Amino acid sequence: MTDAVPARITPQPLPPGSTLGILGGGQLGRMLSQAASRLGFNVVILDPEENSPAGRVSQGQIVAAYDNPTALSVLGQTCQAVTFEFENVPAGSVERLVEGGAVVAPGPKALAVAQDRVDEKTFLNSVGAPTVAFAAIDTLEDLRHAVDRLGVPVLLKTRREGYDGKGQVWIKSPADALKAWTVIGERPAILEARASFQRELSVICARGRDGAVAVYPLGENIHKGGVLKTTIAPAKVDAKTEARAHAIAAAILEGLDYVGVMGIELFDLGGGLLLVNEIAPRVHNTGHWTQDGCVCDQFEQHIRAVAGWPLGPTTAHARVEMTNLLGDDVKKWAALSAKPDARLHLYGKAEARKGRKMGHVNRVKPLV
Amino acid sequence: MTDAVPARITPQPLPPGSTLGILGGGQLGRMLSQAASRLGFNVVILDPEENSPAGRVSQGQIVAAYDNPTALSVLGQTCQAVTFEFENVPAGSVERLVEGGAVVAPGPKALAVAQDRVDEKTFLNSVGAPTVAFAAIDTLEDLRHAVDRLGVPVLLKTRREGYDGKGQVWIKSPADALKAWTVIGERPAILEARASFQRELSVICARGRDGAVAVYPLGENIHKGGVLKTTIAPAKVDAKTEARAHAIAAAILEGLDYVGVMGIELFDLGGGLLLVNEIAPRVHNTGHWTQDGCVCDQFEQHIRAVAGWPLGPTTAHARVEMTNLLGDDVKKWAALSAKPDARLHLYGKAEARKGRKMGHVNRVKPLV
Repeated sequence: MTDAVPARITPQPLPPGSTLGILGGGQLGRMLSQAASRLGFNVVILDPEENSPAGRVSQGQIVAAYDNPTALSVLGQTCQAVTFEFENVPAGSVERLVEGGAVVAPGPKALAVAQDRVDEKTFLNSVGAPTVAFAAIDTLEDLRHAVDRLGVPVLLKTRREGYDGKGQVWIKSPADALKAWTVIGERPAILEARASFQRELSVICARGRDGAVAVYPLGENIHKGGVLKTTIAPAKVDAKTEARAHAIAAAILEGLDYVGVMGIELFDLGGGLLLVNEIAPRVHNTGHWTQDGCVCDQFEQHIRAVAGWPLGPTTAHARVEMTNLLGDDVKKWAALSAKPDARLHLYGKAEARKGRKMGHVNRVKPLV
Repeated sequence: MTDAVPARITPQPLPPGSTLGILGGGQLGRMLSQAASRLGFNVVILDPEENSPAGRVSQGQIVAAYDNPTALSVLGQTCQAVTFEFENVPAGSVERLVEGGAVVAPGPKALAVAQDRVDEKTFLNSVGAPTVAFAAIDTLEDLRHAVDRLGVPVLLKTRREGYDGKGQVWIKSPADALKAWTVIGERPAILEARASFQRELSVICARGRDGAVAVYPLGENIHKGGVLKTTIAPAKVDAKTEARAHAIAAAILEGLDYVGVMGIELFDLGGGLLLVNEIAPRVHNTGHWTQDGCVCDQFEQHIRAVAGWPLGPTTAHARVEMTNLLGDDVKKWAALSAKPDARLHLYGKAEARKGRKMGHVNRVKPLV
């Protein structure tokens, strides 16, 4: 695989005191900003919401839409490098940032692939990362044919946007095709075969500007209502599965000429067989365990990559059970603060709306 | 000792979303602010220097002198609790903060004791914490008598202010008394006998609002030119020395009815004999190793105490060699960033003046 990567000129790493920009002022932006300031960088956030969680721990925040040309020009001129906390960054925004003089990482190719589920799976298969069988759907006719071919049950998702279980519907009988097509708004879609997996794993990995790849130990994930509830890491996996996950991660990172941290969700079919469910070109909720389980967490790792620094170590010194605090879960803060093994990470969000990610807790256990 | 502490009513811990104030916007304020935001607090800094290291990672900064009445009133009204990164906070400032409605921790008694070297040593001896022999000096006559009594060499220091070797002079012969008296400006002073110590240790400890005491493993310190260069922790100490340090820490914390983290510098005379050199009523440079050696570092510990939360655990999971990056040392950042065991902490200071604390590096080793 490394043979296919052309020789790269390593640019100079950005010195401390440089300014980094982050698109998105939520919890991921907040934790990225904290990691960046620990390394001596200044941080500016772009987010339409005033006084955002990330803005409150950064040198400045530009309050504007993500595609506001003036805001993007200012950010590009202020920041030596720009990154983002979410993958649906408009392609035009990246172009304008680059025009302003900033390096943007991860780059346009990773964004384009991650924004379209058909392109994503097509790319994954092209680099040898297996996925469930799928079909691109543009019409009801396409859908009917694909349901016949892939069988039921089968999952219909919009090609673009939608997350945490939104914008998707299960088709349990060929007769449901019309209804499903209506539910997702008759938009370009992807139809995905069901995977008979034993469990969901994820792998947090990174690639530096010098082409170096670093992979954290795998996490095992438990979802509830389509939303991540818990990650346990390092997951108990056999050597074959671990090696397979590492090979998949390296193939994806290299195939995208990627710079930064990526989260890859995997279906574990058993016997060392893994399918890629989806990739996220950013720090990832299933990587929060690294904050208390590794000396260099995913946030510092991402900042290192974006700033052109050497990647940090990915070994775990503890076993961590990370649990999201959704909505009113955050009211448990007082009880959790009294547990010696519980490390609290709260995002500074005022309103604990139902299901909203308000924080997480890492329960730290000895490495077994 | 606990018998002497009156029964306490534990106030409610401050909920996440509360605002904390910090007097001082340097590196200690910066790392305190980062710890506070991790727990979901908002932070406001008071510092006369615009765009201070701590202000740049906080929700806001009030740019004013530490005794500016308006600034203090605003801070007291904005913040539910206020703390500080340096001990020379004017007593009148604390009064005004309390009038504004804020809880200030550590409290006035700890500040008063820490601001006057004679009061400090008198207090220490009163709670059974031994120090070198000393004498209060108000006149040249006092000084001559004290030099006769304590012998030479002997150290003359101003009673108030002065740090990192400033405001102090060694007297090597009785004939040097007049010169020394002139050098320190004929100000109220303390004369200290020399301790024949084997090494310098320090202990970082904390006391919560509920009276609970937590003590970190000891650190061994190497100073250079009166400034801390390196701390190695946990230090190799025998059980007797460790127990003695813990007892001294508890006695001091309880004697001051203290709330927060304190740094205590010790002279190790060998054989389990320790003298207290000085106390700092705040997070301490010799406690920076806890950031990468403990699950709950001294900064989070201090915020927990100030906010009335239960104290966190103090056990070490790694051995850390902390080295200050002074002045141009910070230019080594690129080489250090490539070392897998080196965790960099940079303070975001623009100008690397000679001897200025620009950052520190924690070299993380397995616990032995």
